[in-house]
Amino acid sequence: MRSEFEFINNIKKRYRLDKVGDDCAVLPKDAQTDLLITSDVLVEGVDFRHEWATPEQIGHKALAISLSDVAAMGGNPTFALLSIAVDEKLWKTDFLDRFYAGWQQLATKFDVELVGGDVSRTSGPLVIDSTVLGEVSRGKAILRSGAKVGDAIYVSGTLGSAAAGLAVLQKGRSSDPKTTTFLLSQLEPIPHVGLGKLIRSKGLGSSAIDLSDGLSSDLMHICRMNRVGAAIEADRLPIDPDISNIFGAEPALEMALHGGEDFQLLFTGDQERISAAAIPGISRIGVITSKAETIDLKVEGVITKLQQHGYRHF
Amino acid sequence: MRSEFEFINNIKKRYRLDKVGDDCAVLPKDAQTDLLITSDVLVEGVDFRHEWATPEQIGHKALAISLSDVAAMGGNPTFALLSIAVDEKLWKTDFLDRFYAGWQQLATKFDVELVGGDVSRTSGPLVIDSTVLGEVSRGKAILRSGAKVGDAIYVSGTLGSAAAGLAVLQKGRSSDPKTTTFLLSQLEPIPHVGLGKLIRSKGLGSSAIDLSDGLSSDLMHICRMNRVGAAIEADRLPIDPDISNIFGAEPALEMALHGGEDFQLLFTGDQERISAAAIPGISRIGVITSKAETIDLKVEGVITKLQQHGYRHF
Repeated sequence: MRSEFEFINNIKKRYRLDKVGDDCAVLPKDAQTDLLITSDVLVEGVDFRHEWATPEQIGHKALAISLSDVAAMGGNPTFALLSIAVDEKLWKTDFLDRFYAGWQQLATKFDVELVGGDVSRTSGPLVIDSTVLGEVSRGKAILRSGAKVGDAIYVSGTLGSAAAGLAVLQKGRSSDPKTTTFLLSQLEPIPHVGLGKLIRSKGLGSSAIDLSDGLSSDLMHICRMNRVGAAIEADRLPIDPDISNIFGAEPALEMALHGGEDFQLLFTGDQERISAAAIPGISRIGVITSKAETIDLKVEGVITKLQQHGYRHF
Repeated sequence: MRSEFEFINNIKKRYRLDKVGDDCAVLPKDAQTDLLITSDVLVEGVDFRHEWATPEQIGHKALAISLSDVAAMGGNPTFALLSIAVDEKLWKTDFLDRFYAGWQQLATKFDVELVGGDVSRTSGPLVIDSTVLGEVSRGKAILRSGAKVGDAIYVSGTLGSAAAGLAVLQKGRSSDPKTTTFLLSQLEPIPHVGLGKLIRSKGLGSSAIDLSDGLSSDLMHICRMNRVGAAIEADRLPIDPDISNIFGAEPALEMALHGGEDFQLLFTGDQERISAAAIPGISRIGVITSKAETIDLKVEGVITKLQQHGYRHF
């Protein structure tokens, strides 16, 4: 069965859709500015569950994942639209009021204004389409393309926390207070808009992507786009030690490599310049290589080819 | 139970969302131009059925209804995004390829470029969110607000044809060749982008809306927005005579008044100036009155208050 990536690439080629394929589409706005736009679909039972997340958290996440796409381009989010297909049972509750309250709380933080959308009835699961617009200096958006052999690879924050949060939810909530951080990573991810803008304004990123599907999958998007490879080192991955403590070292590494929804930024660029910029909260995890579409992973001195196990819908 | 209109108005007031509530949001673009953006959700079983429409027709309609919103503002459509939640069974067929082919065929006609969107898995009915961007001269978008007492009310094309098409589908397709027009109105609606641009460029529209929910409902949106009323005359409504011939005069009038999805433009403006412009294919159906939020309907000399029976999700 074809994956959604194959499907989208096929449509992109067939209809020559040059602007499809990055975290956001980049459209001309004015002499100084480009417009960014991105849409993300969330489906009940696939992307969230009512028994795991409050309505406010679902609203938060719907906006956060689109803001994260704008962040990955180095953009400043501005406006948003929300389209919702909801069944009658949920419509009659206070779900949507609380959903919008959670959405709005995050929107206020980033000065994003809701300008439109649609509400429709469905007989099936709740479906949310979150669209966010942003702005970036003309020609300056950080694209997935641009990574060069020799560029250092960086990620922000910690990896695997959202996957750890999902594991906690799947096993039933724990009373261990350490798991609270994981749950928040999964349920209320923070979009790294400030970091994206910093990298962009200092011209430090040769390419960037947000970690939505998982490091192995999202880094491969960068490699494919640039016909390059990557070599990363397990002991450089910023994994919260609590994940190893609770789940063990090997599962923690799996979560960091393949767990999606961390919504951290992955970017590439010149190691010396990035070091000199002394950006807090980022980790250098490896280097771009000439081994096209191959990610080498070094674990305790042993190098293996990293397989992609990131999230796929199809 | 609150209607979706009440819900949206409530959210709009609570969070002071000034840009919500017209066919498109109007956003600043550059010194000469405003950006328009609109989203429309289509749900299988509610907005379309696989047994009634080909995949190409569903793709056509998904784009057409959003283009119609841009048309109602007098704008020129430019870019689009398509977000889709699809179940595995449909994913494995050629549905999406044919859906995109139908979408693309209409997009090519209006020079609209697909720039983004998302594909997600669902366990429920197919859900499509169609987002279209457009442009209009700065400050010149035709809004729902602006209708003044004494303004004449116009509609484009014919009314009730899409409802007649729906009736044909519900009763089972007929071999009567006359019904083909109705079916096409329902399944492949034409967005009136050229007409919208003409009205805007000549400055003839004091307000406008596209007829998506039905004349009685959409005209009431204009009345509410402007705290005015309307008086319309049944014998001025442009009803395809074939609808009366097949369904009878009374059902034909009901379809014209309350049947949704005609995607004709309804606009108001100065009767003398609009007459002088000699725009083909439009009909003057009545006048804006001072009777706030009341639509008077004249049928064979008798005036009654028109009730709203347009389509509502909730």
